Amino acid sequence: MAGVMDYLDSHSERFMTDLADLLAIPSISTASAHRADVLAAAELTARYLSRSGLEHVAILDTAGHPVLVADWLHAPGRPTLLLYGHLDVQPADPEGEWTSPPFQPTVREGRLFARGAADTKANVLSALWACEAYLQSEGRLPVNVRFLLECEEEVGSPSLRQLVRSRRQELLASAVINLDAGQLAEDQPGLTTSYRGLVGLEVEVRTAETDAHSGGLGGLIANAAMTLAHLLARLQDDEGRVLVPGFYDQVRPIPPDQARELATLGPGAERLAQGVGARGLWGDPAHGPVARNWLRPTLEVNGIWGGFQGEGSKTVIPAVARAKITCRLVADQEPERVFTLLEETIRGMAPPYATVRVRATSGFATPYHLDPAHPVARSAAKVLTGLYGRPPLEVGAGGSVPATAIFKEELGLDSVAFGFALPDEHVHAADEFFRLADLRRGRQAVALLLQEVAAQP
Amino acid sequence: MAGVMDYLDSHSERFMTDLADLLAIPSISTASAHRADVLAAAELTARYLSRSGLEHVAILDTAGHPVLVADWLHAPGRPTLLLYGHLDVQPADPEGEWTSPPFQPTVREGRLFARGAADTKANVLSALWACEAYLQSEGRLPVNVRFLLECEEEVGSPSLRQLVRSRRQELLASAVINLDAGQLAEDQPGLTTSYRGLVGLEVEVRTAETDAHSGGLGGLIANAAMTLAHLLARLQDDEGRVLVPGFYDQVRPIPPDQARELATLGPGAERLAQGVGARGLWGDPAHGPVARNWLRPTLEVNGIWGGFQGEGSKTVIPAVARAKITCRLVADQEPERVFTLLEETIRGMAPPYATVRVRATSGFATPYHLDPAHPVARSAAKVLTGLYGRPPLEVGAGGSVPATAIFKEELGLDSVAFGFALPDEHVHAADEFFRLADLRRGRQAVALLLQEVAAQP
Repeated sequence: MAGVMDYLDSHSERFMTDLADLLAIPSISTASAHRADVLAAAELTARYLSRSGLEHVAILDTAGHPVLVADWLHAPGRPTLLLYGHLDVQPADPEGEWTSPPFQPTVREGRLFARGAADTKANVLSALWACEAYLQSEGRLPVNVRFLLECEEEVGSPSLRQLVRSRRQELLASAVINLDAGQLAEDQPGLTTSYRGLVGLEVEVRTAETDAHSGGLGGLIANAAMTLAHLLARLQDDEGRVLVPGFYDQVRPIPPDQARELATLGPGAERLAQGVGARGLWGDPAHGPVARNWLRPTLEVNGIWGGFQGEGSKTVIPAVARAKITCRLVADQEPERVFTLLEETIRGMAPPYATVRVRATSGFATPYHLDPAHPVARSAAKVLTGLYGRPPLEVGAGGSVPATAIFKEELGLDSVAFGFALPDEHVHAADEFFRLADLRRGRQAVALLLQEVAAQP
Repeated sequence: MAGVMDYLDSHSERFMTDLADLLAIPSISTASAHRADVLAAAELTARYLSRSGLEHVAILDTAGHPVLVADWLHAPGRPTLLLYGHLDVQPADPEGEWTSPPFQPTVREGRLFARGAADTKANVLSALWACEAYLQSEGRLPVNVRFLLECEEEVGSPSLRQLVRSRRQELLASAVINLDAGQLAEDQPGLTTSYRGLVGLEVEVRTAETDAHSGGLGGLIANAAMTLAHLLARLQDDEGRVLVPGFYDQVRPIPPDQARELATLGPGAERLAQGVGARGLWGDPAHGPVARNWLRPTLEVNGIWGGFQGEGSKTVIPAVARAKITCRLVADQEPERVFTLLEETIRGMAPPYATVRVRATSGFATPYHLDPAHPVARSAAKVLTGLYGRPPLEVGAGGSVPATAIFKEELGLDSVAFGFALPDEHVHAADEFFRLADLRRGRQAVALLLQEVAAQP
């Protein structure tokens, strides 16, 4: 084990070089123009996997972006961990808000700035380096390992279920280690026991075939942008309650004692809000902020656009306006059912002077829960307790990892989140970064986890 | 006069060439990237003016885009007409909606398609050609003429007032002929006796400093796009009534007999709405459509944007969202007062969790009225009656021409609208066009008008 840790420390410069090369690839899965970049990220990571000593490295085709797999299965009688992560990233726009270009990895004040640094290329390579350290210094891993790295996580993992279903035999394992994960603070680890689900849609409001002159037609025809504003305002009140009938019907009530416990974590929520410069906390006053983030569903307008957006003024009545909407879901909401509710409600709001279209966008994700007594969860908690000097808090995640639900439903496997992003690292926003100190902590942590799982009775 | 008409017909191909060359210049005044194009349009038109025989052709600097002037003042004892028009055009976006590129003038089915064809390069050159025909065939004009062609009409003529004020002596005239004008239909002329005014503003709603992950922060902070939707929905109800307190206070009531007369013009409004493919007529049910378009103020969202607008999905909580708004005003609304009402109302709507900024955009325009008994108005009516075989209807204009108010206030001059665009020609929208038949009718009409004004007692 000492040799493994020495290897990890003595190769830190090469690790940084490898990570920077991967971060320089704009592997944006949502934009078809970046298709080749996504593949390039998979190919580069495949070379890293081969060099590390992992075997059966392969890039698998799917209906969408490829999936990268590898394994090392020479520890008979020992558990098998399925290490899951993703190589795709969110779009970087608005690029003008970045201090340094999003795909030119830049170190400032102990932080590595780049799109994908925290979500989640550093976490993925940390696990790869931990395996490399065992294989190169000891010639073997303490457990069996399979890597499964997809390239569609940021678009809701639409191809993953089919791939997992068709390769069940090659994915047999004891548990999934989900590398797309984070901790609570620099000095406080967390063990994530729930993820929210996701459903996404795009709404188009059309009031005419072409934009019209606001003088010539003003007073005669409806404005698509204003019509969309009215429609959106009817979906959610200004305190955050979703007004779609039936939206909350399947939401599991929060027991009063859990609500009281979550209320004590309020300062953490305040810090999160401060981290993005929010004017303050906001949301349904019937629930505390942490409960709202972990155990209550949301409705967000991710984007809105219509009419003239350029410099200056254009006196036009927009014919069409659009909004992208996603909802985070909680147990026991079913994504398909919530989508249908949203679709029917929005279509039902269409006034006679407008055509309203609704279509599903990102892949749907089912909410997920992990039992903290799961043996791999206990191993993870032990490693984190050793590294941070205090045990992890059980936490919920506001976000969604569709893969977690897929592994549970298709393979019967639970997922233990094990990554080192932190809540203030601007994930999905401008100036995303990852702390350099967590590069070292992350690769050490995975190395220790593999050993800990191997030592399970 | 026969020689003038012969000259106009025998030069029609050259006129078309000149117009196409001018239309090929993207003289978009609202975009600073097109600054050189705007100047190029003025320079090309200056060459046309010089070649026609007009004198003192000059491009005058302003704080913004230049103004082109010329004159011919050798008709002592005769009236002087100030021919006003503009050389700038609206932006062409979305360019994808054009059948042929907006700055590649294209003839299809008797129509000339290009941005600026109807608004208003064809009208400006028609007047220029009429003067050329007199000067080249008879060596003189029947009246004195001054041209004043600005390049900022589409952004609200912000520099025109100062220029007019500083050159009062060089702009002495009997009346203004406003070439930025149109007729009611191919077989029905109109005499415009009112223009609406204009006020413009941009609203920015900010809920945080950076966009946030809709999972990590969802339920904790407010969404700028949804906050903007709520704010806009409170400015106007879904039947078109503006909800800003005091907005209608200065609006002159429509006498019942005028309202009844306007109601008979409803089919024209229907055709206008059909021309842009609108789902139907829309607006405050207390007034008929024509009354709403000519004699009632409006509030339009010209553009809205915030968050992710690209392909696919991005699970982000937008930190900022913006809308551009313009209002058309009617007598006796004062633009500054209406702007202040809007600004105070919108700022007053700012919730505690958002910062709302409001700033004025396009130049303001005061509503304008013309007495149809004005001698030049009567001359125009006589010419139109001769050309169309029926007298012009008195009409209001839904649009705004700030210059008209400026000429009235600074020079005491009334403006007679005299142009040949038609309501279905996609002004300010994709596939703008001008009818080839109206090129001939337009230049003949101006030639006849100059003679008619000269013959006034």
